[in-house]
Amino acid sequence: MTRDPSIYRLCLVTDRDLARGRALTDVVAAAVQGGVTMVQLREKSATTREFLEEARALKAVLAPHGVPLVINDRVDIALAVDAEGVHVGQKDMPVEQVRALAGSRIIGLSITNADQMRGEDTRLCDYLGVGPLYLQQTKADASTPLGVEGFRALRAMTDRPVMAIGGLKADNCAPVLAAGADGLAVVSGIVSADDPRAASQAFARLFQK
Amino acid sequence: MTRDPSIYRLCLVTDRDLARGRALTDVVAAAVQGGVTMVQLREKSATTREFLEEARALKAVLAPHGVPLVINDRVDIALAVDAEGVHVGQKDMPVEQVRALAGSRIIGLSITNADQMRGEDTRLCDYLGVGPLYLQQTKADASTPLGVEGFRALRAMTDRPVMAIGGLKADNCAPVLAAGADGLAVVSGIVSADDPRAASQAFARLFQK
Repeated sequence: MTRDPSIYRLCLVTDRDLARGRALTDVVAAAVQGGVTMVQLREKSATTREFLEEARALKAVLAPHGVPLVINDRVDIALAVDAEGVHVGQKDMPVEQVRALAGSRIIGLSITNADQMRGEDTRLCDYLGVGPLYLQQTKADASTPLGVEGFRALRAMTDRPVMAIGGLKADNCAPVLAAGADGLAVVSGIVSADDPRAASQAFARLFQK
Repeated sequence: MTRDPSIYRLCLVTDRDLARGRALTDVVAAAVQGGVTMVQLREKSATTREFLEEARALKAVLAPHGVPLVINDRVDIALAVDAEGVHVGQKDMPVEQVRALAGSRIIGLSITNADQMRGEDTRLCDYLGVGPLYLQQTKADASTPLGVEGFRALRAMTDRPVMAIGGLKADNCAPVLAAGADGLAVVSGIVSADDPRAASQAFARLFQK
């Protein structure tokens, strides 16, 4: 399926615990106003029912704006709410199985090193999330940061759209884009921002140059 | 779909942490020799990839014997390995959504009280797991035990096949069957047994009277 590649420019990756008590629907609505082009719902401790309800609520926020919703890990939830995509990591379902279940939905894959980049899954997915770029507190189990040069090397190994992720702030992304990132996937830089709309705008402006 | 109701007689519900270091495939293979008629794979801390691989391994053990595999919570994993069924609790995906995704697969639902029994999901599923019958250590978040009389009251509220679950041992099940259980769902009574085959046989013998 041909997709507008601009959907990969600015992805908000949710983290309920970093939202400072605000509802994810409110944070996401503000971020959409600010220019995010995709939202990935990531839930690591919610029950399936909570995850499903949150996915349905975000879908309702995003659909009127045509912003695709991508569900982290859970293909069943993506199917149940008819989300536009699924994002998997290396410990989730292999992309071949995801494709069999999710059909033409967008499939994203997290990549942290060259070995993973050489895997079959890289060829079968629609976009890659490559990182972490910088040191960050979002993921307790995050890998060693790639830095810009490490990112550049991985980016050169694939012709898939690549979103950089990990420790991104509006003021440290210029070299990442110069190193070949098609887009930016942002967690705390938007979710924890005082003003998620303004934070999203600051990232979005990087693509207007 | 019409199913042989004997599949609901003796369900082994897995718990990796209670298997005393033995592979679940070995425990399940022994339990099938002993007469279990269904296996529910329950994984609460595994990654999706581990869960998927375990499901595939159990499917390979069970398929030659015609014993159905039911996946706890994860409809996507059930679909990926073509398991015969899905079992959901009250915090998992509602049965209506499970049915939409899982089609004619067996759908089981956990019930712990009368309010849940009155829910729409009870009508939409294929069998109910009702419990806990007795005090047990398997689930840290288990509800107050129903006891035989509490079980009898819930059992009378539905015409679905009902498996009793919770603290079952071969020597405390006779009153449960007399109270109307169609079958028994057993966790530690088989998974933790010195001899899972002999333990399964002891439960299976209760249906030969």
